[in-house]
Amino acid sequence: MPEVPADESVPQRITVLGAGSWGTSFAKVLADAGRDVTMWARRAELAEEISECGGNERYLPGVRLPESLRATSDATRALDGAQAVVLAMPSQTLRANLSGWLELLPDSGPLVSLAKGVELGTLKRMSEVIVEVTGVDERRVVVVAGPNLAREIATEQPSAAVLACTDHERAVSIQRASFNEYFRPYTNTDVIGCELGGSCKNVIAMACGVAAGLGYGTNTMATLITRGLAEIARLGAKLGADPLTFSGLAGVGDLVATCSSPLSRNRTFGERLGKGESLAQAQEATGGQVAEGVKSCSSIRELANEQGVDMPLTDAMHRLCHDGRSPRQVGAELLGRAKKPEWD
Amino acid sequence: MPEVPADESVPQRITVLGAGSWGTSFAKVLADAGRDVTMWARRAELAEEISECGGNERYLPGVRLPESLRATSDATRALDGAQAVVLAMPSQTLRANLSGWLELLPDSGPLVSLAKGVELGTLKRMSEVIVEVTGVDERRVVVVAGPNLAREIATEQPSAAVLACTDHERAVSIQRASFNEYFRPYTNTDVIGCELGGSCKNVIAMACGVAAGLGYGTNTMATLITRGLAEIARLGAKLGADPLTFSGLAGVGDLVATCSSPLSRNRTFGERLGKGESLAQAQEATGGQVAEGVKSCSSIRELANEQGVDMPLTDAMHRLCHDGRSPRQVGAELLGRAKKPEWD
Repeated sequence: MPEVPADESVPQRITVLGAGSWGTSFAKVLADAGRDVTMWARRAELAEEISECGGNERYLPGVRLPESLRATSDATRALDGAQAVVLAMPSQTLRANLSGWLELLPDSGPLVSLAKGVELGTLKRMSEVIVEVTGVDERRVVVVAGPNLAREIATEQPSAAVLACTDHERAVSIQRASFNEYFRPYTNTDVIGCELGGSCKNVIAMACGVAAGLGYGTNTMATLITRGLAEIARLGAKLGADPLTFSGLAGVGDLVATCSSPLSRNRTFGERLGKGESLAQAQEATGGQVAEGVKSCSSIRELANEQGVDMPLTDAMHRLCHDGRSPRQVGAELLGRAKKPEWD
Repeated sequence: MPEVPADESVPQRITVLGAGSWGTSFAKVLADAGRDVTMWARRAELAEEISECGGNERYLPGVRLPESLRATSDATRALDGAQAVVLAMPSQTLRANLSGWLELLPDSGPLVSLAKGVELGTLKRMSEVIVEVTGVDERRVVVVAGPNLAREIATEQPSAAVLACTDHERAVSIQRASFNEYFRPYTNTDVIGCELGGSCKNVIAMACGVAAGLGYGTNTMATLITRGLAEIARLGAKLGADPLTFSGLAGVGDLVATCSSPLSRNRTFGERLGKGESLAQAQEATGGQVAEGVKSCSSIRELANEQGVDMPLTDAMHRLCHDGRSPRQVGAELLGRAKKPEWD
């Protein structure tokens, strides 16, 4: 296990692996904070577009990227001299990607995770996958959480975020490296809670979409968010998270942003399901991508069952997506549960 | 002090005092749950419209009220034989109204408060005002809280609510009296927390409106909701509320509904302020009514100061509404606060 210095200076040379919307936005945040940032993109054309044209039209249409931002499709070149590495790949491919780059990762410095989700099959959080694959000390892993709609950050709207690391000083070093005019990161040492908040919220956002698709309004959405938060916190408590985390930016904050934004893919996907489209139809209509929540509802449900935790909304989304139930059936099953004290 | 029976049967004959949008919606909830409901409206024409035409076009345009619902402008007639009384007047006029009806109120049975707010001057919550004016045992006062946009409930969208009373059995009697196909009330014994959640959220909703008016998006709104919730919970903790309440329907739930709905008057009002309108201009544009949050930010700020609790968002709204600050100044002051652990 590599040695972890207790207080590291702010990393200057940072590599972002992945050029989707969140990876590109976070690379911009770092560049705008004065860091020297190189991105890795899988496709050479995208790397060229970022470096030469200062844009990423597919993922962030219309956004002008900083001139200093460079991208390459060559991971060796991207990681050369990196003092910190940002992992911005989709959660279900993180393990495979990371396995191919083991030789290229720096021996020290933070590994910053933007991925949100619970791995199918292993039921591990992303920081656990990172530690398992790379063998680094968990105190090198920093998780970015909070209400972070990529497009809004890319357009420089004031946003708060949480940087979670079991090593507080490490989180502070990334806080210093990323703090700028529009990006305001707070630190937190509860990695478990911050990662769970980010993973579970997609399922609740999908449920909010289903409700909207059924024609329900803001009261219903607010109720789903509240009861969703309660079930996430129940799972978190069982897994050792700090309950306070779920009342904060990585809990309520991320949940509210994802559930209420028209930009949220999970919400939009759920809305199509609520209107009666099948999984396949919704997938086709949203550019062939399945929403994260469709997979997450299964992995989180499995985790909850393993821990003996009741998660009725996650369960309902699983029945809707993978068990042939209709939105109305699922809704009726949920409504049948009420008439009791709030915290039984 | 009148005697309070420990377990009362469900009230059948219920009077709702006040015929605004929430009072009318809640009267409909009770009627749809099978209760015998009489409303009191200040204006005789409105009482007639409700009784004769089954509508309340000013407050709930297009909504069809149950035929069984009767209204009168005569308080004596309205309260005759009432087994429960619902108080649906605006918070700042509750004391004055109630003082005039002391002789008419029943000697027993629940007094149900729909009013949300902290009284200017006395800094008392509505249930405290009710107890003070009427002299009833606090265990007779039930507070309705939660994400309750009146219009959505009136259009029978599934909504959860909280019925808070220090006497659990009393809350259960109102739960039984109001439970119907679309209205799902939970019970809670934390009256302080439930009332604070409902009072403070208007200020945060106004802040969300200001941010929207300045052009900010969902991340900013989610951040304001999260930080707003934190400051409300701080005040609550100091006043003896149960912290759990703020993670529930009367906290997060009500806050999210009020902050994200286009139907919210406080949000709309804040949006006008954010776009540069003065208080007077915003008031004129919204039909002459000042939003509740404009008054609440002062009373809640005073309460927070008295208790030594830091409430930066409420403070900022006070500076904006009553201290001549511009929305941009207030925003910059708030952003200057970051760069620290989330829970310091």
